[in-house]
Amino acid sequence: MGLPKKMLRPLTSSPLNTASSLRPEIEAWLAEFQLRLCQQLEAADGGLARFGTDEWQRPGGGGGRSKVLENGRILEKGGVGFSAVWGEMSKAAARQLHMPDPRFFATGVSVVLHPRSPRVPIIHMNVRYFEAGNGDAWFGGGIDLTPIYVDEAQARRFHLALKAVCDVHSQTYYPRFTRWADDYFFLPHRQETRGVGGIFFDRLTVGKDGSAEQLFAFMRDVAELFGPFYSSLMAENHALPYGEREAAWQTLRRARYAEFNLAFDRGTRFGLETGGRTESILMSLPPRTGWAYNPAPPAPDSPEGQTLAWLRKGVDWVGSEQ
Amino acid sequence: MGLPKKMLRPLTSSPLNTASSLRPEIEAWLAEFQLRLCQQLEAADGGLARFGTDEWQRPGGGGGRSKVLENGRILEKGGVGFSAVWGEMSKAAARQLHMPDPRFFATGVSVVLHPRSPRVPIIHMNVRYFEAGNGDAWFGGGIDLTPIYVDEAQARRFHLALKAVCDVHSQTYYPRFTRWADDYFFLPHRQETRGVGGIFFDRLTVGKDGSAEQLFAFMRDVAELFGPFYSSLMAENHALPYGEREAAWQTLRRARYAEFNLAFDRGTRFGLETGGRTESILMSLPPRTGWAYNPAPPAPDSPEGQTLAWLRKGVDWVGSEQ
Repeated sequence: MGLPKKMLRPLTSSPLNTASSLRPEIEAWLAEFQLRLCQQLEAADGGLARFGTDEWQRPGGGGGRSKVLENGRILEKGGVGFSAVWGEMSKAAARQLHMPDPRFFATGVSVVLHPRSPRVPIIHMNVRYFEAGNGDAWFGGGIDLTPIYVDEAQARRFHLALKAVCDVHSQTYYPRFTRWADDYFFLPHRQETRGVGGIFFDRLTVGKDGSAEQLFAFMRDVAELFGPFYSSLMAENHALPYGEREAAWQTLRRARYAEFNLAFDRGTRFGLETGGRTESILMSLPPRTGWAYNPAPPAPDSPEGQTLAWLRKGVDWVGSEQ
Repeated sequence: MGLPKKMLRPLTSSPLNTASSLRPEIEAWLAEFQLRLCQQLEAADGGLARFGTDEWQRPGGGGGRSKVLENGRILEKGGVGFSAVWGEMSKAAARQLHMPDPRFFATGVSVVLHPRSPRVPIIHMNVRYFEAGNGDAWFGGGIDLTPIYVDEAQARRFHLALKAVCDVHSQTYYPRFTRWADDYFFLPHRQETRGVGGIFFDRLTVGKDGSAEQLFAFMRDVAELFGPFYSSLMAENHALPYGEREAAWQTLRRARYAEFNLAFDRGTRFGLETGGRTESILMSLPPRTGWAYNPAPPAPDSPEGQTLAWLRKGVDWVGSEQ
């Protein structure tokens, strides 16, 4: 699999020896998946721009590898992060996560891609595996899509693809996890969803919600959807025309993205407050944005107004097929 | 004084009837000060660009008046907000403020100015007056300066001006309040202060820390310093040359400003979480900014590196005069 042996050796030395015997496999799969996804994205971008690599160590235990591509042909800025960290959380953090034992192990891959063109949606994915000191182990993750201009057929295709992956594992997953995404990726001060949603799940607990093998397989299937699906969006949309009006609307929607990530996203806040590597946490933030004061709301029948009308909870993107 | 009678009538109808009989005077002074400050800033900007005005009502009680100037000659974006609001806080908010009674009245003026040139510092001021349902009343506020490039003589002049205002009221104010500003305007994930500090104070309580008249006079003196001081910076710096390098550094420092305001500023978070008017709260956010991944740190002897070296707590800007 071409695993980065140099990295994996320290990363698997967590002293926590509790729940799942799959931990080394999960961590190794995520580390390998990060590299493979970056290769897919480089190819989709045209093959010239490359992800740069920063490896980092976490003083309290573990570390990670941040891979960032900037100024690609299609991707203006894209970050794909892998980490495997362990240690003891602060009491406040443990309380927030309802963990009686502050020891933890966490590994995951996070992706945020900011394409240059307002015709190509921003996209985010995270898949993660967590072990608590008391022996509990769980999986979490999700993918959500943030079009600058909603293409209804593509949004529907996105949700159908997510539903197909979910349905293989449980008929309950897609309905629960798409509602969860609507609730999570929501800007309360704007009364807007961040985009057209997707799926979000957390605490899929080994033993309670399935075996480690089953839940790991679900996480893999979610992750494997990402590269091919987003590559197809890049190919279809990157050459569509746009002008100053579309670029201005992109600036505004990117600012919303920054508002969500800095003020509301629990992962970002948790990372900043617990001393994570700042540049890896904030690689999700958009290039070229800014805030104008109280811009006039777009006319309801304009392309921007039609997009705004989709940025609400509870849209049934897969409904008409059922 | 040219008070906006139309506004003041509803604003003084708060049902809370507790602490200071000065409340109507404080509110009227702040409303008038907002208009006067905007006139000063319009004149300093060159007289062509004007502040636009949005008046808003708060469903739970009170309202405000937001004044914003965009695309001025020197000021790219400047917001001056006045509000006088009352009602009942959520229990969570009251607990956070250590208030046994959730009823409150609050009035204040907030200013953030984003000049176009990286040679002119960003500046922020807030002055506020608060009454709690149990009869406690207090003043708060501060001014802090965020140069893109620190001019040491100007930073020193800024602190000396603040110290002079403070010393008239109490010899203890400047040392306490400048330390408080260093602690408050701090980005823990960057280990940087937002700028060269200034003063920050809160809960200067009527009865305990002075009479209402004394504390109101201090608040007025702080506020009155702002317009003349910043106008002088605008006049001195706006025509200084700069190029792409300085503009890029401004983009980065503006992004830091957005990080602080969205992720850490208590006023912003309190406003967003308690349903304040979003566009008035976020008018502090910068125009034209963006996040690059992990930019190379500036060389220590470069102008950018020299500025970074000042962005730390505990700089004694007035020391060498003592």
